Amino acid sequence: MPLPPGISARDFQTVLRQFEGVVGKDWVFSSDEDVELYRDSYSPFWHEPEDPMPSAAVAPESVEQVQQIVRIANKYRVPLWTVSTGKNLAYGGSAPRLSGSVVLDLKRMNRILEVNDRNHYALVEPGVSYFDLYRYTQEKGLNVFIDAPDPGWGSPVGNTLDRGGGHTPLRDHFSTLCGLEVVLANGDVVRTGMGALPNARTWQQYKYGFGPYVDGIFTQSNYGIITKMGVWLYPMPEMRFTGTVSVPKHDDLIPMVDTLSYLMNSNIVQGTTRVANSLTAQARDAELIALRSKPGGASIPELEDYLRRKNLPYWSIDLPFYGPTEVVPAQWAFAKRKFSAIGGVQFRDGVSNRLPPTPEDLAKVANPVPLGVPSLAIFSALGPNSYGHIDVSPITPMTGQAVFEVMEVFEKVLQEMGIDNVGVVPAGTYYPRSFFFLFTFQIEHDVEKNRKMRAAFQRLVQVGAEHGWGEYRTHLAFMDDVANTYSFNNHALLRLHETLKDALDPNGILSPGKSGIWPKHMRKARA
Amino acid sequence: MPLPPGISARDFQTVLRQFEGVVGKDWVFSSDEDVELYRDSYSPFWHEPEDPMPSAAVAPESVEQVQQIVRIANKYRVPLWTVSTGKNLAYGGSAPRLSGSVVLDLKRMNRILEVNDRNHYALVEPGVSYFDLYRYTQEKGLNVFIDAPDPGWGSPVGNTLDRGGGHTPLRDHFSTLCGLEVVLANGDVVRTGMGALPNARTWQQYKYGFGPYVDGIFTQSNYGIITKMGVWLYPMPEMRFTGTVSVPKHDDLIPMVDTLSYLMNSNIVQGTTRVANSLTAQARDAELIALRSKPGGASIPELEDYLRRKNLPYWSIDLPFYGPTEVVPAQWAFAKRKFSAIGGVQFRDGVSNRLPPTPEDLAKVANPVPLGVPSLAIFSALGPNSYGHIDVSPITPMTGQAVFEVMEVFEKVLQEMGIDNVGVVPAGTYYPRSFFFLFTFQIEHDVEKNRKMRAAFQRLVQVGAEHGWGEYRTHLAFMDDVANTYSFNNHALLRLHETLKDALDPNGILSPGKSGIWPKHMRKARA
Repeated sequence: MPLPPGISARDFQTVLRQFEGVVGKDWVFSSDEDVELYRDSYSPFWHEPEDPMPSAAVAPESVEQVQQIVRIANKYRVPLWTVSTGKNLAYGGSAPRLSGSVVLDLKRMNRILEVNDRNHYALVEPGVSYFDLYRYTQEKGLNVFIDAPDPGWGSPVGNTLDRGGGHTPLRDHFSTLCGLEVVLANGDVVRTGMGALPNARTWQQYKYGFGPYVDGIFTQSNYGIITKMGVWLYPMPEMRFTGTVSVPKHDDLIPMVDTLSYLMNSNIVQGTTRVANSLTAQARDAELIALRSKPGGASIPELEDYLRRKNLPYWSIDLPFYGPTEVVPAQWAFAKRKFSAIGGVQFRDGVSNRLPPTPEDLAKVANPVPLGVPSLAIFSALGPNSYGHIDVSPITPMTGQAVFEVMEVFEKVLQEMGIDNVGVVPAGTYYPRSFFFLFTFQIEHDVEKNRKMRAAFQRLVQVGAEHGWGEYRTHLAFMDDVANTYSFNNHALLRLHETLKDALDPNGILSPGKSGIWPKHMRKARA
Repeated sequence: MPLPPGISARDFQTVLRQFEGVVGKDWVFSSDEDVELYRDSYSPFWHEPEDPMPSAAVAPESVEQVQQIVRIANKYRVPLWTVSTGKNLAYGGSAPRLSGSVVLDLKRMNRILEVNDRNHYALVEPGVSYFDLYRYTQEKGLNVFIDAPDPGWGSPVGNTLDRGGGHTPLRDHFSTLCGLEVVLANGDVVRTGMGALPNARTWQQYKYGFGPYVDGIFTQSNYGIITKMGVWLYPMPEMRFTGTVSVPKHDDLIPMVDTLSYLMNSNIVQGTTRVANSLTAQARDAELIALRSKPGGASIPELEDYLRRKNLPYWSIDLPFYGPTEVVPAQWAFAKRKFSAIGGVQFRDGVSNRLPPTPEDLAKVANPVPLGVPSLAIFSALGPNSYGHIDVSPITPMTGQAVFEVMEVFEKVLQEMGIDNVGVVPAGTYYPRSFFFLFTFQIEHDVEKNRKMRAAFQRLVQVGAEHGWGEYRTHLAFMDDVANTYSFNNHALLRLHETLKDALDPNGILSPGKSGIWPKHMRKARA
């Protein structure tokens, strides 16, 4: 494994010995076989020299140990790459952006410090997984509902700091963050928000504290190491229900999404949903293939006619409702009233679950995550032959027109580049007020395929940005590409990020390169 | 009027001439009678040497002019104190923290750049008031609902940057902020979030962008000058309804608040409410006075008995519901079901309003703000003899116990200090997940009274902090006091704030002293 850049083998041995002095010999990993485990198995650079390799890993169990590690790293200028549970698949796993970084693995810091079901929050350390948190609430019989991302082995801290999302009313995870404890690059410990009061009583109940509200700068960033985080939980709702809305015509999507926007922005529909197009499910139907392959392709009226004959809608959306047994039916009734303005709209009642789900309920569902139960079901849903993947995931306006435009523009690029194995998850509502698309590329351990894939990925990022659709998060390999698209006023925002970096971490020891932010001495000249 | 600290009269004249070169002679104010208007009429230091005096004011009309002013200020080290509409009453109005600062008055930058009622947001400049925004939506017939703070003459930008609050579902104003344009101390212009994409399409629809999310650091801060801000609006709801819940016994408050917490954290009750105690309204009743003045005072059973005989509840809460006509009655039905676990609970249907309100509806209400209509009605509600006021406003847990404890602790302090004219607004829900109290002190132009009042104010801040209840915002005069209570780990958060200040504004020209953050050369040694 490589050495940290600019560090001699001898100095590095000194650093490792000092780390051992802090955490004990068992918790410093430097053999090739140990360090190998911190690589990204789904790296788009596998077998290529750019694939980032950690130099070692160190796993502290307390805030004080983190402080000591940071002070040693600062003294020797050793870059640390912090992970919580290290499950950040599709974004780099536990691998660093910069080869030679020491992975600071926080998975031993896995204490659940408090879960409160009167005011609905938790205070957790970085190594606590969604599974841990769920188990804890079950064991204590707490009346809270957990919003987990698709796989539940990751951690609330890691996912929230990466601004990930889930499926239920509190799915925008950054919006649930309430109070941080941060170790700065100089080893200082800061508590944010109300945690800065020595006898804080509302650290997890009021986000902002007094003066500048700093929590956001510690997300998707390399400005500090989070050692505790508050997270808001949802009070256990009485039920979840989904109702499906379907419309017959292509252009019906426009009023359909306007109504969805009204319902979501009013907190009436509170969970994640996505726009489904029946043509996607029918893609292998012979008649549809024939229709599409005639000269000039299929017109919209022809496609509408085809779907009508198959008794299929053009578009459909499953609306998830969470709430009391009196309220959910009323919300669905209102949704039907609003959508009824669209001619030919159809409604279908979907599944209804009392919450918390019983073991019998859980046995019946393919994926329990929307019912508040963390799971790894997503991996079986992807199929036995599934590989790793990485995603182009632009944020777009929540309008029908945006859906038409994104699909047209991106499909054209993929066609031109001869890419035909991209999975598409169109127009999801992981975040409030906007749509979120996923264009999913498979990762294989095949250098040629990966090169082609990377070129297509970069092109989609670029074309998306030209249209004003930006990426919300990305894999290590594309962090510079994505950061560079946010270039208003000659990269003013990136310059601001760099100013903060230089002030908070002048030696650049914390996660160099994260989100395109490099320490001063590694910064490349910008065009 | 004073000069800026350390600036000669001659240099200051040069600066003013240069400002005139940027904005024109009409928009630089330096005569005593003009500058007098920027003082805080409700200053707790009126007639005392500590009362902060501006040296002059300058009113640009564009971002470019703001940039030029900042560059001039930087060159001559002239402190600027930025205000938007300058209506920040109770917190300092348009007066600076530091005497001799030049007020940078942004009220001419009052363009409404966009209001979108498909995705429910606005993009506004700092000088736009809530009245302006409301008028605009009325003229264009837009289907959006505005959450204004009590007086509507302030601006969304100013109120949001101070993390103020309103009364309707989007009452936590920081949570509605989506995208900033900021002029930094060096004159650079940054757009945050998706605004950093040159062709941004979701600047007002997705908050976070890519990399560190910086918006929070520009609130309650002196790190930059906001020249544009996105704000989320609520889709026009169909109706508002309030229902009142009342309980007979002192200790009923505990389950009552637990149920309120469930309802609010579930987004079922979405507006501002507060806990009311019938003893407050009865404070001048002879029987109650007699009961309380007997040796040892009134016991809780005696007070309960007194209220029962008067047919009054011990506690009551008005629950505001916003939503569709099917949903609101179902929410109220559910609320009643939940509260019914408390023995002796009573319910009363309150007012019901279709939204938007008609002129006839508006004629009937004392204060239209909860109906989405900005107003100055609050000033008449305060009464014709009302004076200015400033508030101690601690954030506490949303529990009944916290209400008991805060009232007991604060009343004791006030009694000990001989203060009997403090208004109390207990346990309001301006912010999600926590309670907010107001202890309101009258400001008079009487030096002795103000001295006594300031001592009591500081004592309440101190005692609150010792109990873990922190202030969310404060008047200029108490910013250092409040910042000093957030002292965990030897003021680590304040040191972080100062590190950011030094990086972003090394000459300390932006709003010195705001939220207790001083430029390096003005920083006092901390104990």
